[in-house]
Amino acid sequence: MKPINVGLIGYGFMGRAHSNAFRKVNNFFDLDYQPVLKAVCARDGGKAKAFAERWGYQSVETDWRELIKRDDIDLIDICSPNNTHAEIARAAAKAGKMILCEKPLSMDGPEGEEMVAAVAKAKVPNMVWYNYRRIPAVTLAKKLIDEGHLGRIFHYRAKFLQDWTISPELPQGGQGLWRLDVKAAGSGVTGDLLAHCIDTAIWLNGSVDKVTAMTETFIKERTHTLTGKVQKVGIDDACAFLARFKNGSLATFESTRYARGHKALYTFEINGEHASIFWDLHDLHRLQYFDHRDEGQTRGWRSIHVTDGDHPYMKNWWVPGLAIGYEHSFVHQVADFFEGLSKKKPASPTFRDALETQYICDAVLKSGKTGQWEKVSRLK
Amino acid sequence: MKPINVGLIGYGFMGRAHSNAFRKVNNFFDLDYQPVLKAVCARDGGKAKAFAERWGYQSVETDWRELIKRDDIDLIDICSPNNTHAEIARAAAKAGKMILCEKPLSMDGPEGEEMVAAVAKAKVPNMVWYNYRRIPAVTLAKKLIDEGHLGRIFHYRAKFLQDWTISPELPQGGQGLWRLDVKAAGSGVTGDLLAHCIDTAIWLNGSVDKVTAMTETFIKERTHTLTGKVQKVGIDDACAFLARFKNGSLATFESTRYARGHKALYTFEINGEHASIFWDLHDLHRLQYFDHRDEGQTRGWRSIHVTDGDHPYMKNWWVPGLAIGYEHSFVHQVADFFEGLSKKKPASPTFRDALETQYICDAVLKSGKTGQWEKVSRLK
Amino acid sequence: MKPINVGLIGYGFMGRAHSNAFRKVNNFFDLDYQPVLKAVCARDGGKAKAFAERWGYQSVETDWRELIKRDDIDLIDICSPNNTHAEIARAAAKAGKMILCEKPLSMDGPEGEEMVAAVAKAKVPNMVWYNYRRIPAVTLAKKLIDEGHLGRIFHYRAKFLQDWTISPELPQGGQGLWRLDVKAAGSGVTGDLLAHCIDTAIWLNGSVDKVTAMTETFIKERTHTLTGKVQKVGIDDACAFLARFKNGSLATFESTRYARGHKALYTFEINGEHASIFWDLHDLHRLQYFDHRDEGQTRGWRSIHVTDGDHPYMKNWWVPGLAIGYEHSFVHQVADFFEGLSKKKPASPTFRDALETQYICDAVLKSGKTGQWEKVSRLK
Amino acid sequence: MKPINVGLIGYGFMGRAHSNAFRKVNNFFDLDYQPVLKAVCARDGGKAKAFAERWGYQSVETDWRELIKRDDIDLIDICSPNNTHAEIARAAAKAGKMILCEKPLSMDGPEGEEMVAAVAKAKVPNMVWYNYRRIPAVTLAKKLIDEGHLGRIFHYRAKFLQDWTISPELPQGGQGLWRLDVKAAGSGVTGDLLAHCIDTAIWLNGSVDKVTAMTETFIKERTHTLTGKVQKVGIDDACAFLARFKNGSLATFESTRYARGHKALYTFEINGEHASIFWDLHDLHRLQYFDHRDEGQTRGWRSIHVTDGDHPYMKNWWVPGLAIGYEHSFVHQVADFFEGLSKKKPASPTFRDALETQYICDAVLKSGKTGQWEKVSRLK
Repeated sequence: MKPINVGLIGYGFMGRAHSNAFRKVNNFFDLDYQPVLKAVCARDGGKAKAFAERWGYQSVETDWRELIKRDDIDLIDICSPNNTHAEIARAAAKAGKMILCEKPLSMDGPEGEEMVAAVAKAKVPNMVWYNYRRIPAVTLAKKLIDEGHLGRIFHYRAKFLQDWTISPELPQGGQGLWRLDVKAAGSGVTGDLLAHCIDTAIWLNGSVDKVTAMTETFIKERTHTLTGKVQKVGIDDACAFLARFKNGSLATFESTRYARGHKALYTFEINGEHASIFWDLHDLHRLQYFDHRDEGQTRGWRSIHVTDGDHPYMKNWWVPGLAIGYEHSFVHQVADFFEGLSKKKPASPTFRDALETQYICDAVLKSGKTGQWEKVSRLK
Repeated sequence: MKPINVGLIGYGFMGRAHSNAFRKVNNFFDLDYQPVLKAVCARDGGKAKAFAERWGYQSVETDWRELIKRDDIDLIDICSPNNTHAEIARAAAKAGKMILCEKPLSMDGPEGEEMVAAVAKAKVPNMVWYNYRRIPAVTLAKKLIDEGHLGRIFHYRAKFLQDWTISPELPQGGQGLWRLDVKAAGSGVTGDLLAHCIDTAIWLNGSVDKVTAMTETFIKERTHTLTGKVQKVGIDDACAFLARFKNGSLATFESTRYARGHKALYTFEINGEHASIFWDLHDLHRLQYFDHRDEGQTRGWRSIHVTDGDHPYMKNWWVPGLAIGYEHSFVHQVADFFEGLSKKKPASPTFRDALETQYICDAVLKSGKTGQWEKVSRLK
Repeated sequence: MKPINVGLIGYGFMGRAHSNAFRKVNNFFDLDYQPVLKAVCARDGGKAKAFAERWGYQSVETDWRELIKRDDIDLIDICSPNNTHAEIARAAAKAGKMILCEKPLSMDGPEGEEMVAAVAKAKVPNMVWYNYRRIPAVTLAKKLIDEGHLGRIFHYRAKFLQDWTISPELPQGGQGLWRLDVKAAGSGVTGDLLAHCIDTAIWLNGSVDKVTAMTETFIKERTHTLTGKVQKVGIDDACAFLARFKNGSLATFESTRYARGHKALYTFEINGEHASIFWDLHDLHRLQYFDHRDEGQTRGWRSIHVTDGDHPYMKNWWVPGLAIGYEHSFVHQVADFFEGLSKKKPASPTFRDALETQYICDAVLKSGKTGQWEKVSRLK
Repeated sequence: MKPINVGLIGYGFMGRAHSNAFRKVNNFFDLDYQPVLKAVCARDGGKAKAFAERWGYQSVETDWRELIKRDDIDLIDICSPNNTHAEIARAAAKAGKMILCEKPLSMDGPEGEEMVAAVAKAKVPNMVWYNYRRIPAVTLAKKLIDEGHLGRIFHYRAKFLQDWTISPELPQGGQGLWRLDVKAAGSGVTGDLLAHCIDTAIWLNGSVDKVTAMTETFIKERTHTLTGKVQKVGIDDACAFLARFKNGSLATFESTRYARGHKALYTFEINGEHASIFWDLHDLHRLQYFDHRDEGQTRGWRSIHVTDGDHPYMKNWWVPGLAIGYEHSFVHQVADFFEGLSKKKPASPTFRDALETQYICDAVLKSGKTGQWEKVSRLK
């Protein structure tokens, strides 16, 4: 196995998820490459050091520019807040590093275009961590669609519901809460949650032509952790939009952090001429499948427990009936990234793939302001 | 018990549902009134006669005008296609009859306004058969909201999914299929299915300010049963819309007859500050309820089996655990109508209540064409 | 339609369920016969009269012997407590009446044998109200088994869980509570609830060879409603047993009234070589079905919403997706009874069919005392 | 952190599960100890070497006696077939090693007693890998019971259903199939699956007094992989038993590998005076909880998504809503074992704790032969 030296930027929630994936991938997957945890980078040197010790990173940096300069780093993994992605990615590309970038790719489409241009110019392998594509049940959904089980598609509907920001006492900004600060996050649920829904949707159902959206900020002001002052909240707390796909199907999307009882309820459903599919992150190991071609009297929604050896990725884990969890989607993504290197077929979503999601988010946020249907920009 | 002589117009699906309700209501509810099945009216005298024999109607009419003229009829129940409601209702009101009218009230708002004016002028008791309000789980939802369990409302979402018109071979028009003929039905899923969703929504969550909608007709032409010719399909096969309620909450609504695997999947969910509620017509005897005020470690969605004596209407039926079905919602509505007569408090929804749903449908259909947000007309 | 004059004995819960069935059956089923509610009989004349008025019985009797004497009664329906079944049934048979008898057939096997002999001698049509056979999902299970979908059967498991007698304050005996009085009921959960499980089991899976059981009375003494005294409780509060069927399959059965959270949770599951079936009274309109012959990647338990026109009995009711409830099983049983009269093929379970359940209950109760495996008596 | 040098015996399914746990535990838990993967031992040196490379074991042994002799080994982890546990454990104890042993502890009670005596004499820390105690939802069940939420217990029921041995073509014996060979496994589903059910049951509900059981071998002969001959099958394919707990509650247990549609359906339910609990391995991240003390109208089974920070173990993983899987139960067990070393309070189940399960299995297997109720041996 060829070692790939990893330099991780950021040590938060995603820093942990990625590190765990790098550490586990070769135990469970046969690959030509092996990630080596070379360095972790964060402005707070003490915290970076503690993180390095816990996860086995060999060294620490406090300036990402220094990390990128190092010759012993092959791959930069960007886990810092959204507003830092573009600058880091462009520098890393220029330095010839492979780049893995947390989602969303960028603050908006134009910024994403620059990132796409940078990796294209540098010809470096690149990928965005839209990890839900690699939940086995979701990958199975893709497989069933590609195999033609569904036929012509009529409807797509997705939502991502949470309930953790209902309290007005919750502050915005800073460690762990930068997602509520529009300057760091770019947007609220649109970039954080709907971006996941959109990424899966375009993967499963193709491009989106146009959208009409409604956004809302329920709590208008919150104390900002960094300034200590009560400040206007700039993010969207909730967003719903209607969409028309290029293939003629109709879609509804919705996300909020004000839906009591839902922690991370990402669901999608797709209705085809012959069959339908439903998936739900709260029961991520199941895929609901209805096939109209089944005999009438026994036709019903099938609850597929996606843990068999012939289900995507599952032969690498345990035995039928024994579930894996959220974190494994990252392991699969690393495995696929390395597989892509071996086969010279980039694992999706690349920066270019992820730019499409960015365009859709832009159209959604714009429509939220104009109240009009907005066309989605096209990749050139 | 005081007898109320019923004259039923129409002998289709709804004619059966209403007749069953009239026949059963006094076996299970203690009321001051007793419906008497006096006459059924339909253009096809033979079919009307067969229906009368099966259900115990004492006589038959083939012209609704004759039925309305009869002195021995106290109450006219309109179960004929949508495009006949207004004329019949106005005549019945003029003749001083009580009127029960199948939903939707009318073809559109203006027509509905005339009906409201007619019953107001005649001062006759009136009600529209939005039966889902009387599914015990739905009534319980209303009760919980009214008791303040949910607090401030953030979100409402409803859908009504079916899959029975996917085949292009299905004709439009005529007996049993008039719902596909825009002249008889007025619209497609909007008036047939979304009207139910809207009626429940305004009952539970108050008035709607504005909407933006998307409609689609997937199968553009179908053979018309009455003409035998292939004709343009005028109805909406699918419709989705975003809405803003007067109370500040956001909503999504969707309906289609092209969602494989769903026969009559009417669902709604409402997310409040403290609690959330979910209901589903396919499991109509359950209400899902989440209360954030429950102790953290045991907090979860409760699946309430709405069959206990302290649940709405249920003490009148069997014992805990034993479910009732769809048809019972009609029995409850008849019981409430008579209760309303006794207490001089009209049972809802009256024509006037149901007009609000009509206005929303109008705005939805208009927005489907303009692509704009449309304000909902207000009741005067 | 030929009228069948019904004489009902008892006006409790089952009196209501049967009366409702008699009143509805001809509205929904095309039959050669029509039940006429001729008389209701109960010792308390006032209550009998009130019942007759509510349900439309034409007359009242206070002595069942008088009822049986009447020439204008064709059919006796026995809804009085278990300890009265045998005497009434024998007299009714002797008088040449058709007999419908609430379950369980009798207090024990020997008593049941006399009843079987009596109806055999009198050659009168007879049936026991094991109504769960006619829940459409259960009937569908029978159909799938008969069509060979399951192959060789390995396992059967059933339970009937309730929680309404946990409080020690609940008295025993008298109106509504005779089920807790061993003299009136014969046994506790065994005759009341397990009898249902057993009836379905032998219908679906054939005869039982032997059983080993465990019974318990958790609350040893309760006030007796009739005597006003605290008396020993003679019934079994809970009973579980293992069984071996004649076809080689293994079974577990359990019933209790001390299972918190379950109102009437009757469930059964049957595992065959090729397929399995699961059903649950709390969601009575669904049948869970797993077929191993489905393609591997999409194999899963199917949740069949048993409301389609090609499902048993359902074409007679509403439209796909709209559920019927508990009470409809009685309507179906009446329809099948009359169908049986027309076709000269008795509807099951006849007294003779139901005697087999009695024998199994006897063996279960005996094993509960001996702690041994007990053979089940065979029908001669 | 103090290093603990691990010597693993066996490299099969459990070898992988344990190795993964050793590798991950310090990334997610703050502990005083750190496992070091020192050596793996297996008779097939080539396979052992491949395993060592994949998982990072520093060395390889082909004779477990040599492994135990090594001074650089602190802890022996036994993952070899059941019939090797006792001899290895006794030798390891004698050598003063800490011992982790896969379940079941031993081939039977007497053999287990020797193992208990050996670790007691040697005073070495010891634990048996009944990993399901550490599924967070199961641990939460234990916590709720210990906190008194359920009150007096009336019923316990558990089952473990699989369907992987239905084909008569499946051979017995050898790598991966030793569980079908009675000489290697000791018994069939009783020791393999029911042992898990029993371990959880006695942890949650205390000791079992007596049992009556039924066992069956559906496929009587299978080709033996090692001999190549068709040989009698000595294991139990299915086993069901009734039990009485010391606390007066009644129980049913069942396991089989012939239940179509179930891969690893381990479920348990416990009904108390006030509340009930249900859990299911196929949806391992949920606990179903019913509390009778909830307000009547909103009472229902709560589906607790056990992924919150205040749920057992979960604050160490991701964020609410994001599930962990089967493998994490082993990580938790390692964490608790080390925690136990720090606090001088042995993590359960120790060998002694696990011996109780062995006694119950012995009584079950004996009863399967005698057809009698059998008393469970008591720990001295």
